[in-house]
Amino acid sequence: MRDFLPDEVRRREHVIGVIAAVYERYGFEPLQTPAVENIDTLMGKYGEEGDKLIFKILKRGEQEGPAVADLALRYDLTVPLARVVAEYRGKLPRFFKRYQIQPVWRADRPQRGRFRKFYQCDVDAVGSRSTIVEIEICAAASEALATLGFADFAIRLNHRQVLSGLLDAAGVEQARHGDALVALDKLDKIGPHGVEQELLARGLRPAVAAGFLRVFAGEPAAEAGGTSWDPANAARLAHLEVALADHAAGRAGVQALREIVAGAGRTAAAGRLRIDPALARGLSYYTGAIMEIAVPDLAGSLGGGGRYDHLVGMFLGEDVPACGFSLGLERIIVVMSERGMFPPTLLGTPADVLVTVFNAAGVGDSLALACELRREGLRVDVYPEVDKVGKQFKYASGRGVPLVAVLGDDELARGEVTIKDLRSGEQVSLARAQVAESIRARLTSP
Amino acid sequence: MRDFLPDEVRRREHVIGVIAAVYERYGFEPLQTPAVENIDTLMGKYGEEGDKLIFKILKRGEQEGPAVADLALRYDLTVPLARVVAEYRGKLPRFFKRYQIQPVWRADRPQRGRFRKFYQCDVDAVGSRSTIVEIEICAAASEALATLGFADFAIRLNHRQVLSGLLDAAGVEQARHGDALVALDKLDKIGPHGVEQELLARGLRPAVAAGFLRVFAGEPAAEAGGTSWDPANAARLAHLEVALADHAAGRAGVQALREIVAGAGRTAAAGRLRIDPALARGLSYYTGAIMEIAVPDLAGSLGGGGRYDHLVGMFLGEDVPACGFSLGLERIIVVMSERGMFPPTLLGTPADVLVTVFNAAGVGDSLALACELRREGLRVDVYPEVDKVGKQFKYASGRGVPLVAVLGDDELARGEVTIKDLRSGEQVSLARAQVAESIRARLTSP
Repeated sequence: MRDFLPDEVRRREHVIGVIAAVYERYGFEPLQTPAVENIDTLMGKYGEEGDKLIFKILKRGEQEGPAVADLALRYDLTVPLARVVAEYRGKLPRFFKRYQIQPVWRADRPQRGRFRKFYQCDVDAVGSRSTIVEIEICAAASEALATLGFADFAIRLNHRQVLSGLLDAAGVEQARHGDALVALDKLDKIGPHGVEQELLARGLRPAVAAGFLRVFAGEPAAEAGGTSWDPANAARLAHLEVALADHAAGRAGVQALREIVAGAGRTAAAGRLRIDPALARGLSYYTGAIMEIAVPDLAGSLGGGGRYDHLVGMFLGEDVPACGFSLGLERIIVVMSERGMFPPTLLGTPADVLVTVFNAAGVGDSLALACELRREGLRVDVYPEVDKVGKQFKYASGRGVPLVAVLGDDELARGEVTIKDLRSGEQVSLARAQVAESIRARLTSP
Repeated sequence: MRDFLPDEVRRREHVIGVIAAVYERYGFEPLQTPAVENIDTLMGKYGEEGDKLIFKILKRGEQEGPAVADLALRYDLTVPLARVVAEYRGKLPRFFKRYQIQPVWRADRPQRGRFRKFYQCDVDAVGSRSTIVEIEICAAASEALATLGFADFAIRLNHRQVLSGLLDAAGVEQARHGDALVALDKLDKIGPHGVEQELLARGLRPAVAAGFLRVFAGEPAAEAGGTSWDPANAARLAHLEVALADHAAGRAGVQALREIVAGAGRTAAAGRLRIDPALARGLSYYTGAIMEIAVPDLAGSLGGGGRYDHLVGMFLGEDVPACGFSLGLERIIVVMSERGMFPPTLLGTPADVLVTVFNAAGVGDSLALACELRREGLRVDVYPEVDKVGKQFKYASGRGVPLVAVLGDDELARGEVTIKDLRSGEQVSLARAQVAESIRARLTSP
């Protein structure tokens, strides 16, 4: 339970504002769903690791225990979207592109940039199986991050059918595919040896586990940004095509990856996509392409997503294809804060100008001046008491307000206002009609 | 638990955006607090009616009953602000002006524009006893409503010390003042006879109840807007001054009201304030001026507020004066929807232009065009599949997208794009570099 004081709210709203504006330019429409869903809506959609992390809400007045929890806090924004698509099917367009920026809750161990309540910024496109959807979604996420000032991110890209093909080729039986992906998902954290131990613990035969892991042995660890991935991508796709030569679904996965990389070449995702066969993603609902955004200075990702063509069907009884991407607000803010990426003008200035209050008789005049300047779009504070002018100047300076407007008896008599620039100490008296313009000029070029 | 589909989110975000921008121009800074507070923070702050409506959260695993609830859902944004001011005293400026736009929960009977979860849009100024604060807050609320398009609202204005004085003058004992105000607060709903019955039921002697109510007998019912209130305000203030001639605190209240009405004369609240001695406000924490916004076509108010100089002291042990105003998001939306006040461009157009996809070979070209147009700030959708062009036109038209960009083999060969205006049927081929400009021109003057 955190309070967000003004500068923290400004950071959050800045990031949300940039992301929402980019998503709007990509034709996504806003959606909001309630924080609380029926527990049956959420359970069984996220895989074993996910289900454990759902915050369950107990039925009023009953004892603790899984049997009596009937509600749960939203774990992500994807499953609620699938419920909405099923519930409002007739009211939504054939291709429903929505964005949603809301909090989700996970009963996880908190770490850097990772909280039990955090905001996700999601885009999803529902209704098409075409890889145009994946490209558009990668482009939207890339443009959002680039607009925020990120230059060094990469989108790791893989495909669940490729992973299934590689598992089949290694002789891993179908029923253990989910287990094997949960283990592979930890490759970054626990290394190949750790993954092998986990595969064995989950009952894979040693030769099978070793054979599966051999595919990833030549892969460099997922580093981010800077390089052109294109030659590496071509080499990896060719390599996968050979490995999956006898596996139709796997080959179709490779073909989809090829289309995505090619189609993204002249979009905002150009140069960002990096084929990474070791990317698994934890959630069980993915069926096709999967993506995850890496930056060098954050363990874990800034966001991720993928295609989930069967999830809506779990609510509707009939499959509706879908694909989406989620950016993590808090992680973005952690990295941007550490790197000093927030615009300096965003923080610490509650107003452009403070209007002083000279004496009791002048209160109405000061308030009228403030009203005029606000109509001109300026952010104006009024000192709320009759007080010594020096004290009012000191207050403005301490609050980071750059300019002060003084309206004393002399100024009133002359129809003027004195503007003092607290940064330079400079002071000028201006005719009332020129004040707003002069303030605006000083704000843009001090 | 409601889902907000795109047009509803747009309505909500439009109102929130306008209100937040106005509050920023008034020098208020953003604050956010958690949905859940300790139950002790909330109980005993709102008066008898309020305490009953707090949603209490049971301790995990224990039986129902008030003894084991240790958390509660936020009931308003004012008490959490008072907690924040006490908790972060050293980090906040001497005068802390904050706005906060977040949901609150009340276990109330839902009615038109009234939900169990609803958003409040609050401004509060902490740290000064000056009536400049009341004036600024009334001006900010007025400017927010005026910017949204409201022309016919009035701010009913009263003062708790005036009410106390009138109660004292009528011979109501101090211990029953709270009871009497809870009853008076229902005057609009149940009329003078109903209030009288409630006063008697709460143990007032018949002569005292009748004497107290006589003060309001000459008052017209709270009608809104249109008229200049100034002569009526002057008459009412004069009347109250006579009635409270022997009551120092009451006279100070009248003086504060006089300052507020006079000081607001050249602000955005000019002509909006209407002295209304029958306005009581339900919450127990008010100590000075109280306000409530009325429009003719809504029972209940669009918002309200007042001064509460002792509430921070309940957390800090030392009084810090404060005053605030809250606008109700859902009520504003109900009235704006019924009156058709939302800008028509706000709703129903998910994008400015749809880029068609001609054939598989042209996917990259269509995506590149979309990318260019988005860089120009346009909202661009891309048809997500290779399909018959006629079907793509029909889709755009059905979604309310006004323009379609066609990039076929001919256009590509000529370095052109064909733009079709679905509203007029007109169609032009343009050089690639002129497309964005042409689209922008068509959007502003179709």
